[in-house]
Amino acid sequence: MGKERLSLYDTTLRDGQQTQGVQFSTAEKLRIAAALDALGIDYIEGGWPGANPTDSAFFDEVPKTRATLTAFGMTKRAGRSAANDEVLAAVLNAGTAAVCLVGKTHDFHVTTALGITLEENIANIAASVSHLVGQGREALFDAEHFFDGYKANAPYALDCLRAALEAGARWIVLCDTNGGTLPHEIGQIVRDVIENGVPGDRLGIHTHNDTETAVAGSLAAIMAGARQVQGTLNGLGERCGNANLTALIPTLLLKAPYKDKFEIGVTDEALAGLTRTSRMLDDILNRVPQKQVAYVGASAFAHKAGLHASAILKDPTTYEHVDPALMGNRRVVPMSNQAGQSNLRRRLGEMGLEVDKSEPALARILDRVKELESEGYSYDTAQASFELLARDELGLLPEFFEVKRYRVTVERRKNKYNKMVSLSEAVVVVKVDGEKKLSVSESMDEAGNDRGPVNALSKALAKDLGRYQEAIDDMRLVDFKVRITQGGTEAVTRVIIDSEDGQGRRWATVGVSANIVDASFEALLDAVRWKLVRDGETGAA
Amino acid sequence: MGKERLSLYDTTLRDGQQTQGVQFSTAEKLRIAAALDALGIDYIEGGWPGANPTDSAFFDEVPKTRATLTAFGMTKRAGRSAANDEVLAAVLNAGTAAVCLVGKTHDFHVTTALGITLEENIANIAASVSHLVGQGREALFDAEHFFDGYKANAPYALDCLRAALEAGARWIVLCDTNGGTLPHEIGQIVRDVIENGVPGDRLGIHTHNDTETAVAGSLAAIMAGARQVQGTLNGLGERCGNANLTALIPTLLLKAPYKDKFEIGVTDEALAGLTRTSRMLDDILNRVPQKQVAYVGASAFAHKAGLHASAILKDPTTYEHVDPALMGNRRVVPMSNQAGQSNLRRRLGEMGLEVDKSEPALARILDRVKELESEGYSYDTAQASFELLARDELGLLPEFFEVKRYRVTVERRKNKYNKMVSLSEAVVVVKVDGEKKLSVSESMDEAGNDRGPVNALSKALAKDLGRYQEAIDDMRLVDFKVRITQGGTEAVTRVIIDSEDGQGRRWATVGVSANIVDASFEALLDAVRWKLVRDGETGAA
Repeated sequence: MGKERLSLYDTTLRDGQQTQGVQFSTAEKLRIAAALDALGIDYIEGGWPGANPTDSAFFDEVPKTRATLTAFGMTKRAGRSAANDEVLAAVLNAGTAAVCLVGKTHDFHVTTALGITLEENIANIAASVSHLVGQGREALFDAEHFFDGYKANAPYALDCLRAALEAGARWIVLCDTNGGTLPHEIGQIVRDVIENGVPGDRLGIHTHNDTETAVAGSLAAIMAGARQVQGTLNGLGERCGNANLTALIPTLLLKAPYKDKFEIGVTDEALAGLTRTSRMLDDILNRVPQKQVAYVGASAFAHKAGLHASAILKDPTTYEHVDPALMGNRRVVPMSNQAGQSNLRRRLGEMGLEVDKSEPALARILDRVKELESEGYSYDTAQASFELLARDELGLLPEFFEVKRYRVTVERRKNKYNKMVSLSEAVVVVKVDGEKKLSVSESMDEAGNDRGPVNALSKALAKDLGRYQEAIDDMRLVDFKVRITQGGTEAVTRVIIDSEDGQGRRWATVGVSANIVDASFEALLDAVRWKLVRDGETGAA
Repeated sequence: MGKERLSLYDTTLRDGQQTQGVQFSTAEKLRIAAALDALGIDYIEGGWPGANPTDSAFFDEVPKTRATLTAFGMTKRAGRSAANDEVLAAVLNAGTAAVCLVGKTHDFHVTTALGITLEENIANIAASVSHLVGQGREALFDAEHFFDGYKANAPYALDCLRAALEAGARWIVLCDTNGGTLPHEIGQIVRDVIENGVPGDRLGIHTHNDTETAVAGSLAAIMAGARQVQGTLNGLGERCGNANLTALIPTLLLKAPYKDKFEIGVTDEALAGLTRTSRMLDDILNRVPQKQVAYVGASAFAHKAGLHASAILKDPTTYEHVDPALMGNRRVVPMSNQAGQSNLRRRLGEMGLEVDKSEPALARILDRVKELESEGYSYDTAQASFELLARDELGLLPEFFEVKRYRVTVERRKNKYNKMVSLSEAVVVVKVDGEKKLSVSESMDEAGNDRGPVNALSKALAKDLGRYQEAIDDMRLVDFKVRITQGGTEAVTRVIIDSEDGQGRRWATVGVSANIVDASFEALLDAVRWKLVRDGETGAA
């Protein structure tokens, strides 16, 4: 027997944008749409054309996708025809092959929020869907508050669905808009809906995570017969977010009974890019990726318990439900325990450093990491600093140059126009190839704005490094994170700096000090040294 | 018909400590245990006595709790009697009323990981549980890998459970150790186990979140008959974490059918402290609380969509599945939309500022917030800076003092012992009551350590503020967060500073600048000004 097709519908660009603090630019939307298309999503909901300039621009600029591009809107308002509703017209004007319209199915919302009769609402649904179909579009109907509506007035809620279905909607999407419906109820109500005449292969499910069960609710709906599932990357969305496609997709591909019953548009190859896609979205949002998230989190396969870590080395299936590599993720065995050395050798191997089992530096590296981590360093993200530390112990780190001293001044005072302005100045003294070089830079950019002391330091450090100058000219600082690792008066600051170069490499380095400028300088120095290592520079003669 | 009692078992202090990056001190464990006890948890698992000094010290120091304090350990090893197993002896020596022992139930793990026969394993389980009961302890048996074991060899897995039950275990806890079992399987297997002779009121469930369904899996087990549920606060735990009690507890208390069928130890009053308890744990972990988490997240009741926000103002049940106040959480309606003004008045009211509807400053406050947020400010957390901004527009902010200028120098060079050392020095010039005051401080603390430029600035600013001196003497900086809000060369830095005073108040302020020192200074200034407002100081004569 062949597998049934399950349709994946992504709403990261619409419902995902309802996340508090999230506001995508058009360029970011285009980047996310390309990633969704590469992943193998069937429908990409791009936004609500006409609702804001960003969404409208997205539909103007988006290139052809393999996925069906979908515009979102709402059913026509009462008192005008579908053809004369300018809100609906703007949605159609986006010219997408598919259009998804949200409409009411909960009697309470029809009468209180819309203030129209139950019959008028049904007529609006039918007329709106007919209008889409008449324009040659694939129509989807988002049944808002469906589960609450069904519990309040099942016959009416079902009548709304049937109106959309009979008007030609390809998909009827059951939305748990407020997120309060538990999985067992979702399963039961989906079964009821199918028994009442809406075929499962026309039914979609749209859940929210307000009880932390959005993924389970979606799975329950699929098990009950729904054949489209809606969600977002990383579970973005209004309030607690939507069903997390980043968790759902691996379950559908890897877990019984789903993997045996269904096929989805995501290939094994695309699945192996899922971790990268998830991190890319966090990167766009300038968020630190959550470590403990299912399948793709940095801790999802981290084995901290001593008994687990030692068993994992014998056989990973002892404490892993799936292979992390399937999602492009990786196993983490903390270096502090007995599993440390072989794990360390694996990490070094990934950096191109093949080290023999008997190498005594291995133990020294582990000791140094342990000691530095107790001082506030963290090498989970700062892989480049870790590599430098390891190279140092292995005797594979050239001494490129020596920093003799630096000084930074930050001043804020009135300028000649009686306006408060700030300015930083940095002096860095280095010794390269036996020659002492003094460099000074200030924090003013070309537009006359103060960019701060770390900027001034970074410029002074990179200003004259003799024969290394060319190698570091294409480096730039792209992110900067600071964390106080101990509170109170003993506060210690950890700075993580992300750098990029012209070859598209991106690397993270760490510095720790009670002095934030000094911690930043340490991380900057590591960034420069790693770049010189990677570019194959050799040390002082 | 009376409600059935459901037992809540917390393992934040044991499995929660397996979270990557989490390492509780004994003092922190004591603080968490007190919070769990106040919440109404039935069992508090404190750790593994003997496994490390922190866990042992916890059991020595923990005061009497209403909850049953539980020590964790493992079943005796083969080849020795339970009485002669020193690992088990250390667990019993903690003297807790209850002891939970983990043991194997998956044949593969017995033969590969333990390397003993299936019969020996069953004998070990029985002997260990009997030993606990013989010592007058309440015994719990954690059936490791039970669901995988049941799928591989059901008769053997069931025999293990029966051995524990017959030896006198009060609870048999079915553990989904690797986290790969989906809710529908958990429900089915729990039903099978009950049919095979283990009564539901002796059965517990312990799930992990590796497929993002740990909460749903726990609910499925309860629905199938299990009567104890294990989890952790904020879903801490190995890999992706354990079932999140912070999400489970509100569902059990507020949602059908659970609220009608069961009673748990958490009162309505304790539930109203849940948000605070969740934030306290993040505070101990020095983590930024996740906003999108169910029930207790800062965004859990944030209504960003325009249609939602306006409906919420008419009737909150339109877009809220439960009342946020029940968990001590609050509704957030972003100020940028039409719902803004009434929401703003509510927020001001909470700060003790009763403002009339017709007050023209309301619109100005909203405009200023909108403009500043577009520059990188964020008032979600920095409530104190928000209050100052509002007071300023309302004419309720005295001008306490004026900052004329400041200068900070950070230097790093060799000292007389040829060691690289760093030092910061700050000069702040303020005008108080018409008098100009120059203050200088350095960043060296009493132990001779450099505490950085923000420390030096903070000390110089607080050194001489004339008649305000007494009010600010009990302030201290307790946390400091930095975020680049725009990447690249146009980088803008946002600094959030948390301050505390001797009266236990804690407040957050924000500063934004391309210059991190300047952003810090702005946040420091706001911190001082808020403190002066709160202490009822008046402005310059």
